[in-house]
Amino acid sequence: MDTLFTHVSVVTMDENLTVLTDAFVGVTDGKIAYLGKTEPSEQAAHTVDATGMVMMPGMINCHTQLPMTILRGYAEDCDLQTWLENSIFPREEKLDGRAAKAAALLGIVEAVRFGTTSVSDLYAFSDETCEAIAQSGIKANVARPVSYFEGEEAFDFASFSMTKEAAALHKKWHGYDNGRIQIEMGIHAEYAATPETWEAVSRYAAENGLGLQVRLSETEQENESCLERTGLTPAQVLDCHHVFDGRTAAVHCVHLTEEDRALLGRRHVSAVHCPTSNLKLASGRADVVALVKNGVNVALGTDSAAASNNLDLFAEMKLAALQAKELHGDAGSFSAQAALMMATVCGARAQGREKECGMLKVGMDADLILLDFTQPHLIPCHDLANHLVYAASGHDVAMTMVRGKVLYAQGKFPTIDLASVISELQTYAIGKVFGDGKDEA
Amino acid sequence: MDTLFTHVSVVTMDENLTVLTDAFVGVTDGKIAYLGKTEPSEQAAHTVDATGMVMMPGMINCHTQLPMTILRGYAEDCDLQTWLENSIFPREEKLDGRAAKAAALLGIVEAVRFGTTSVSDLYAFSDETCEAIAQSGIKANVARPVSYFEGEEAFDFASFSMTKEAAALHKKWHGYDNGRIQIEMGIHAEYAATPETWEAVSRYAAENGLGLQVRLSETEQENESCLERTGLTPAQVLDCHHVFDGRTAAVHCVHLTEEDRALLGRRHVSAVHCPTSNLKLASGRADVVALVKNGVNVALGTDSAAASNNLDLFAEMKLAALQAKELHGDAGSFSAQAALMMATVCGARAQGREKECGMLKVGMDADLILLDFTQPHLIPCHDLANHLVYAASGHDVAMTMVRGKVLYAQGKFPTIDLASVISELQTYAIGKVFGDGKDEA
Repeated sequence: MDTLFTHVSVVTMDENLTVLTDAFVGVTDGKIAYLGKTEPSEQAAHTVDATGMVMMPGMINCHTQLPMTILRGYAEDCDLQTWLENSIFPREEKLDGRAAKAAALLGIVEAVRFGTTSVSDLYAFSDETCEAIAQSGIKANVARPVSYFEGEEAFDFASFSMTKEAAALHKKWHGYDNGRIQIEMGIHAEYAATPETWEAVSRYAAENGLGLQVRLSETEQENESCLERTGLTPAQVLDCHHVFDGRTAAVHCVHLTEEDRALLGRRHVSAVHCPTSNLKLASGRADVVALVKNGVNVALGTDSAAASNNLDLFAEMKLAALQAKELHGDAGSFSAQAALMMATVCGARAQGREKECGMLKVGMDADLILLDFTQPHLIPCHDLANHLVYAASGHDVAMTMVRGKVLYAQGKFPTIDLASVISELQTYAIGKVFGDGKDEA
Repeated sequence: MDTLFTHVSVVTMDENLTVLTDAFVGVTDGKIAYLGKTEPSEQAAHTVDATGMVMMPGMINCHTQLPMTILRGYAEDCDLQTWLENSIFPREEKLDGRAAKAAALLGIVEAVRFGTTSVSDLYAFSDETCEAIAQSGIKANVARPVSYFEGEEAFDFASFSMTKEAAALHKKWHGYDNGRIQIEMGIHAEYAATPETWEAVSRYAAENGLGLQVRLSETEQENESCLERTGLTPAQVLDCHHVFDGRTAAVHCVHLTEEDRALLGRRHVSAVHCPTSNLKLASGRADVVALVKNGVNVALGTDSAAASNNLDLFAEMKLAALQAKELHGDAGSFSAQAALMMATVCGARAQGREKECGMLKVGMDADLILLDFTQPHLIPCHDLANHLVYAASGHDVAMTMVRGKVLYAQGKFPTIDLASVISELQTYAIGKVFGDGKDEA
């Protein structure tokens, strides 16, 4: 046994939502080798006394845009269109691969510090993002989103820049490090591509057994425009064009009709709920209770640090639970357990990783986190699940482990040279993106 | 000069919302003695290199129920009435002064750890709460809420238990430590007292120059019942009975009509917004933008740790801003500056402490906090105010100072013996309140 955690409280998130107190968890060769109330007989090379700590599966963040970490807090308090056009797009244009990689690394640092062990990224500079992921040790499903507008150029999967990039990404990174990196296909959104592109991208995903990430019904305007153009909702249109044929994660799902939700349930599409981003950009509130009632697998995402300002999935979990209660006028409509499932089990399912992570069980990857429950704001502790959702924060994470490897512990990041990352970001990346002075924001 | 902070970024929250970088802040005899871009000539007994730190006024939490910290996370995910009747009331009945004091101290520990320098408390066991406040060094406006239901006993201010308690509290604690503790009068809520009691309590407040705390329109049901009984909204009824004659803080203000908001503005009533509590108990969403438009001073509160689970005003500030944006369908409807004002300047105004704290200015009390802005999740930093509201957390607070005295710094609480507080809570208080085993929750 490589590592043995002793005297730890474990929120397993297994099928029975088993919670063990004063338990022992053993890790061997990157996998959970032991989990029980009694000390295992096998000797461990390394023992961690986890008295006062709570262990749970690592958080799974199903919507990030890691390189956008460089724009965190850059432009705020303006509407989505002004924000994008006056502030975000002009800066994104200046981003290059080197700056993007530095920002992605910083995003990963924050994610693991706050207890995230796997992310789904949907952004440009995917190759550099994969380099950052490879180096850091975090798990990731990476998709290069395709957008295409009818213009002079005819769409051709093999020659169009973005699909070419996506295919190259697939060849280069899919399955890296025994599947730690998975490449997925990406569609920016219904409004940013054409039926031909959706079909080509979906076909490539199907032929290669890849997942697919797509934004869906983030804003009301997006829905109205689609209805006007096609007479159908974005969910209906995408479904007609095979986007939901494989394992698809639909991000946002704010403005769905009840028929849309039933459709997602029927077609086994996962919904990725990003509550902070949706409130902050005034997009609206996704009805996760209704999604779950329709059998939809609902996962959680932070969106980019430019949208939600933090990559702390604990904050998203709390907000998701609070919002659902108020939206339904019923504090009993959403439980702490449901919020925990969204951040773990359901996230793993959305990523197609449910056999390897999302719960703590012998044989699964040792993707796990420890939280320090000895702090004043977690005392007294009447119920572990309640505390994890309503009182704890990513700041309480004391250790983050992926496949048995420590990525964060007590302020240190063993796989990442934090000082270099910050220096590269502050000197090279900020200069590259903001070197000509700030815009009017 | 007692203490000099050097090379610090200062978000003053003064009338011009002045922000200084690489600045110097001097503290003498508990007051801010110097604030500027150049090093003061006067020598300081103690110098703090605050490079990488951000200083702002201490947060002011205008609605707490400190002894309820013992019930944090105890019963969740059920509706308000079930929550109160099955879980909260039976436990509150077992609370005694000693247990309440231990819980209040733990609540104060959490508050100062998360950067709060002043609270308004509205709960029973106010005498013991004042003892905890006196000992800790935090500022507080404490009110013993009066509730009275028509029954056998006739109401008489001098002899009724709760008003007697409130008057005794006033005599014993009002003005303690040069006004660090202020006693206010309290009314539980419109539905929990009678016109006679409201008038008697308000009269006592007026005659003694005391502020008044009252819950207002927290739930829809509360409003409907009042309208049915009186034909008026709770705000209108309370106004008729002199509750708004002095400096009054109305807590929650979720279900106000536009006329109610105009009334609060006209009568200079402060509204205390508790967004987490209101969502979690499915009470609704207060419209703070509309309140501000009506000239209402809007402060922030966490409510008890049983309702919102944390006494972290940074979380409330972020949620207040996010929620306002979505509620108005306009990301520009509420700014980071507005959120910061609610947590500082407006809180001080609600407490009648606007001349002593809520902003950083020479001559004001040195009620201030430092946040560590060198952490990965606060990098890069394009704008201090944006980061304080959208990216920072109470966990980032590195130091909390009240009147020049450090109450929290780097994990330590110089005025409070944390180990004793936790031991008293875990051994005596939990035993007293939960000794007979847990209820069905």
